[in-house]
Amino acid sequence: MRENRIRQLWAQGQAALTAWLSVPSSYSAEAMAQQGFDCVTVDTQHGMIDVQAAMAMFQAISTTSATPLARSGWNDPMVIMKLLDSGAYGIICPMVNSGAECEAFVRACRYPPAGNRSFAVTRGQLYGGSDYAEHANDTIVTLAMIETRQALDNLDDIVRVEGLDAVYIGPNDLALALGYGPSAEPSEKEVIEAVDTILAIGTKHGVKVGIHCPTGESARRRVGQGFAFIAIANDLRMLSAAAKAEVVAAKGE
Amino acid sequence: MRENRIRQLWAQGQAALTAWLSVPSSYSAEAMAQQGFDCVTVDTQHGMIDVQAAMAMFQAISTTSATPLARSGWNDPMVIMKLLDSGAYGIICPMVNSGAECEAFVRACRYPPAGNRSFAVTRGQLYGGSDYAEHANDTIVTLAMIETRQALDNLDDIVRVEGLDAVYIGPNDLALALGYGPSAEPSEKEVIEAVDTILAIGTKHGVKVGIHCPTGESARRRVGQGFAFIAIANDLRMLSAAAKAEVVAAKGE
Amino acid sequence: MRENRIRQLWAQGQAALTAWLSVPSSYSAEAMAQQGFDCVTVDTQHGMIDVQAAMAMFQAISTTSATPLARSGWNDPMVIMKLLDSGAYGIICPMVNSGAECEAFVRACRYPPAGNRSFAVTRGQLYGGSDYAEHANDTIVTLAMIETRQALDNLDDIVRVEGLDAVYIGPNDLALALGYGPSAEPSEKEVIEAVDTILAIGTKHGVKVGIHCPTGESARRRVGQGFAFIAIANDLRMLSAAAKAEVVAAKGE
Amino acid sequence: MRENRIRQLWAQGQAALTAWLSVPSSYSAEAMAQQGFDCVTVDTQHGMIDVQAAMAMFQAISTTSATPLARSGWNDPMVIMKLLDSGAYGIICPMVNSGAECEAFVRACRYPPAGNRSFAVTRGQLYGGSDYAEHANDTIVTLAMIETRQALDNLDDIVRVEGLDAVYIGPNDLALALGYGPSAEPSEKEVIEAVDTILAIGTKHGVKVGIHCPTGESARRRVGQGFAFIAIANDLRMLSAAAKAEVVAAKGE
Amino acid sequence: MRENRIRQLWAQGQAALTAWLSVPSSYSAEAMAQQGFDCVTVDTQHGMIDVQAAMAMFQAISTTSATPLARSGWNDPMVIMKLLDSGAYGIICPMVNSGAECEAFVRACRYPPAGNRSFAVTRGQLYGGSDYAEHANDTIVTLAMIETRQALDNLDDIVRVEGLDAVYIGPNDLALALGYGPSAEPSEKEVIEAVDTILAIGTKHGVKVGIHCPTGESARRRVGQGFAFIAIANDLRMLSAAAKAEVVAAKGE
Amino acid sequence: MRENRIRQLWAQGQAALTAWLSVPSSYSAEAMAQQGFDCVTVDTQHGMIDVQAAMAMFQAISTTSATPLARSGWNDPMVIMKLLDSGAYGIICPMVNSGAECEAFVRACRYPPAGNRSFAVTRGQLYGGSDYAEHANDTIVTLAMIETRQALDNLDDIVRVEGLDAVYIGPNDLALALGYGPSAEPSEKEVIEAVDTILAIGTKHGVKVGIHCPTGESARRRVGQGFAFIAIANDLRMLSAAAKAEVVAAKGE
Repeated sequence: MRENRIRQLWAQGQAALTAWLSVPSSYSAEAMAQQGFDCVTVDTQHGMIDVQAAMAMFQAISTTSATPLARSGWNDPMVIMKLLDSGAYGIICPMVNSGAECEAFVRACRYPPAGNRSFAVTRGQLYGGSDYAEHANDTIVTLAMIETRQALDNLDDIVRVEGLDAVYIGPNDLALALGYGPSAEPSEKEVIEAVDTILAIGTKHGVKVGIHCPTGESARRRVGQGFAFIAIANDLRMLSAAAKAEVVAAKGE
Repeated sequence: MRENRIRQLWAQGQAALTAWLSVPSSYSAEAMAQQGFDCVTVDTQHGMIDVQAAMAMFQAISTTSATPLARSGWNDPMVIMKLLDSGAYGIICPMVNSGAECEAFVRACRYPPAGNRSFAVTRGQLYGGSDYAEHANDTIVTLAMIETRQALDNLDDIVRVEGLDAVYIGPNDLALALGYGPSAEPSEKEVIEAVDTILAIGTKHGVKVGIHCPTGESARRRVGQGFAFIAIANDLRMLSAAAKAEVVAAKGE
Repeated sequence: MRENRIRQLWAQGQAALTAWLSVPSSYSAEAMAQQGFDCVTVDTQHGMIDVQAAMAMFQAISTTSATPLARSGWNDPMVIMKLLDSGAYGIICPMVNSGAECEAFVRACRYPPAGNRSFAVTRGQLYGGSDYAEHANDTIVTLAMIETRQALDNLDDIVRVEGLDAVYIGPNDLALALGYGPSAEPSEKEVIEAVDTILAIGTKHGVKVGIHCPTGESARRRVGQGFAFIAIANDLRMLSAAAKAEVVAAKGE
Repeated sequence: MRENRIRQLWAQGQAALTAWLSVPSSYSAEAMAQQGFDCVTVDTQHGMIDVQAAMAMFQAISTTSATPLARSGWNDPMVIMKLLDSGAYGIICPMVNSGAECEAFVRACRYPPAGNRSFAVTRGQLYGGSDYAEHANDTIVTLAMIETRQALDNLDDIVRVEGLDAVYIGPNDLALALGYGPSAEPSEKEVIEAVDTILAIGTKHGVKVGIHCPTGESARRRVGQGFAFIAIANDLRMLSAAAKAEVVAAKGE
Repeated sequence: MRENRIRQLWAQGQAALTAWLSVPSSYSAEAMAQQGFDCVTVDTQHGMIDVQAAMAMFQAISTTSATPLARSGWNDPMVIMKLLDSGAYGIICPMVNSGAECEAFVRACRYPPAGNRSFAVTRGQLYGGSDYAEHANDTIVTLAMIETRQALDNLDDIVRVEGLDAVYIGPNDLALALGYGPSAEPSEKEVIEAVDTILAIGTKHGVKVGIHCPTGESARRRVGQGFAFIAIANDLRMLSAAAKAEVVAAKGE
Repeated sequence: MRENRIRQLWAQGQAALTAWLSVPSSYSAEAMAQQGFDCVTVDTQHGMIDVQAAMAMFQAISTTSATPLARSGWNDPMVIMKLLDSGAYGIICPMVNSGAECEAFVRACRYPPAGNRSFAVTRGQLYGGSDYAEHANDTIVTLAMIETRQALDNLDDIVRVEGLDAVYIGPNDLALALGYGPSAEPSEKEVIEAVDTILAIGTKHGVKVGIHCPTGESARRRVGQGFAFIAIANDLRMLSAAAKAEVVAAKGE
């Protein structure tokens, strides 16, 4: 089975850097996958992307050496199954609020007996290889999003779930959950401490910790702090900001 | 009929700034249309966009005050008709190499008796208004691309065609046509002179002159030189460059 | 944030009239949005429309002043989240059968602390404006469908749920639930009384009451009775009936 | 090979009534095909429909006994070939202005030696049957649009082209061509006379004459005059008018 | 209402043979529906097919006499409702593990009072006929997949659920559930016995038993054993194997 | 620039074997590209595939080492340009009937000064590499279809066109052109001789000769005869035949 670049990087003690896609186009997906990211996440939660569009995007990403991932729309085994069948090599799952929810998430990513993912020959095999069934459980990565107060309270239970590879912080939702406005770069003390706590608890239990960053510079700083999985902004935000900057330059405003 | 922002700007002696779309997505199109451009060009020639996708993109652009334009795939009356029917308020036509070709282009954009565009109630009316048939000939703008040596030789004939609003320079193809490598910002003397010649001849005959620029800074300089229609790079290039920059910042390379 | 026309009408004591779309086309959606409806509902429950198609339809509707709404496929927070992210300014939720289910529905439509909608910058912001996060909870309308006997029994609990704006009657399903054949215009005494009861209880608790009508004439009568939100038939039924009438006229049958 | 209902009706001296589709949806296409029309025309000229969408619409129409037709975007052999390959049982070709153009059109619809349509097993066979190659030339109908002054002048040459089954009048374009505003129901004497002339000349040469009508009532009148092929309005116009009428009834305006 | 070919065959004591589609194309669907299968199953679980694509495929299948079915992505009433509304005449439901789950599945396929399927006029009526609402409950077939150890343990409860027409065996998942590698043609004694048990228990309770087979030969043998519903491989596997064989023949490897 | 496998094989005196795709799906395209073909041709002439669908299919093919090709819908420079921009590494052009037409075809595939292909950074660069502009003219292969009597008469002129890599025989159209029924495996003496003549003349002038074959066995024989480019049937025919065979085996007919 084709290897998962994220596992390779983690085995070397390195962080994985992911692109984040919200535009439902395999053309922009292919271009993004060529910019040097280690992996590319198709965001089917807040992106304007459904599973059908995601499949075409996974194909586009599969023309490169970047590993395809997906954020699932929900902690829902059907949705997770379809993304994995389409060729995702990892799932970032939103709204994981307890050990039980985390276990349900991880089981949805694993074939029996480790889990209850349903088996069939699908695009997963076209991408991973004919021995996909044997190695998928060890290859696919699982990342649980910590984004509510309840999840913080249950963090110890969550990180102890067997088969969970990482927890992932969405600063916007975390800040909202703690009673602040959404912010991509936390500045409130309570949010900053929550981020630190998640990093510490994950690290202590041998679970990787990931975080969403607004910029590459922020990403670099997070790697320095010990984060092992970093997403930077998303395609639409990068495109909008770049276009805005050119308009300002052109109009001299 | 809804007014064409490009004609308004030209009437005020101002240049029109256009976004340039190659990604077949109405989502990125809508975001680009909100960045302050005066108009948004859907590139159905070199973009990965066919007429069906273009229609959805025109709808997305129509949620803003930016005027929707299209680059047609060819100087082909069927293709031009379908883009106009879909709601384009102007056509940038490639490969206009002679006065006769220019006349064919302009006639494809105009209802009889000024031209031979076929009439029906289409999305053009949904966008322009119920009096579309009456005012379309005066509202829609026509831009002929000058990108071959033959077009340069026939430039006087081209700019004299009645109903032509502007000529448009694609520096890449112009440089290739003159025997140089493609370049978005001409540096060869012969190409620079060709650009100057086009600007001079167009201006002399009351035809606006447009040009494709790699950056907003370059766009601003071109406006200062007298260009009246400026496109900046395109969506995919902006996105790729922005993503690349963040990766470099993140990896510290 | 762009205002919600439905809230404006309700503030003035007026009813809102909605188109109802089942055809997965942004072209027919744009045409329907121009016919004078106050809002346009994309039916992702019984329409042949998934979330990907709905997004393109919301864009088409957004070219007009009509407010875009969606009927969700189910009382499912993932589905509701994706429709809101795509730009819906209100959700009509089927199968709300108890106070608890209604609360789950309303919470799915609201950011914390009022609910548990997950936050990200999406098409919602492109449509609503950059201050979307601040005002979305007060702008988006929530309509719970009352269509089972259980819902009738629990109506008092349902209308008391904080944040619920309206209850909505689907006469077909309501008649079925009460043991009659589906009927768009109730004629059975028990169904008529159920409709009256819902109107009375909703009105008493300050919750608006909406209903699906087969014709404009029926709609007008319902407004006179005090209904504040009215849908008329749907696109496919209007189209089929209109075409049938022309065929009959043509063939003289 | 499956028979062409239009040829059957013509053999019985009856007129064929066609629906006219401009909305790119196989769902509305299927509904329209069930309303009693003899055939259904997918308008790839002024409809928002490309060949890919047309194929899905032909499939939807093929679930009924109505015969699928297409208006081609242009008198272009590639475009005509692809529509026939997709299962159209007839082509309405715009802008046929001379005998030579008509001959080119007809040849594009016929396999050698009668024409130069390229052969392959395609959806045509799925729809028509395995003996498609043998009978296609005798089954598929060809309708040339007469919509310019030049076409009127060359009408004798056009109707004499072997293999042409019918001429078809688009009143909007014909009126425009003669110097009047577009009108679906001609009222100017010159346009009325042109319509009469086309009917007379076609009839004299054994070529059927078709016309686009705004309503079923108008269609019936045209049949009485001897027209053998009648289209009524189109889907979008029927839908818009029906919706508008309900809004007016609802609002009591 | 149009009859269901599966019920007709079962009434005659015959087995129904189904094609199995995983490729999201209405073109290959139409071709497959013409190869002599009694019915055609659109696999929205492990196929790369969402509900939007499924609808177009149902239309393609509806051009033939083969009955359209769907495997739902999950035992989820929204998903089942949308497939039935799109025109499926039967649902194969994965992951039915208990009597309660089976009852939920069957109820999702039936209008009240037999179940809780929500009613509206949809594509189901276009396919089934205007009396769809009256007869749908008796026409649509329900097949529950038995693919876990838990389902085996609860088999007696499952087959006793009123309204269940058949149980269906996916040998791959069943083998996995029993601790073996996935296998389309069971060879392990325990799996073979489980298959026999399901056949015996289903038969005893008057519930049909179906099974997925890798080849037509295997299908024939299963019919001989008493299986009443047989699927053969799927489109992608047939295509891949056929292409591979031609490559081998061509290269002489 | 990424190398073209066809040129590599030809340089080694070997024939290239191509898959032939008519189903508009990137999923079946990806599976086909994994079956051992040297290249994969997306048939936009007789396949149900437009340029938009072709792009997604090229992406799917690009996940493998098979080289992506396209058959263009016509000898039309716009169509050819868009296929090359989408990533095709070669064009099979139908209806090349004279030296002049062949020259037009080849020029449409080459950047100036060798031709008049228009330049822009497109998906071609994503697939081929950043030095695409420099090497495209030497990398992309051109195959002209010989399928009419006129083309046979002009064969000497056609094969002398500079930059033409190969001629390609479509036996169906060739047989039709010579007055016989379409046949994938020529049996008429005149057709057989025409095939031999094309092979001889091509070989004499150093132009490769390709042919469409119905089976792998036939392909192998053609390679033995000296053909250097072989297509086998197409996806839909392989799928249909494979399915038919399984149905026959299952039903024991």
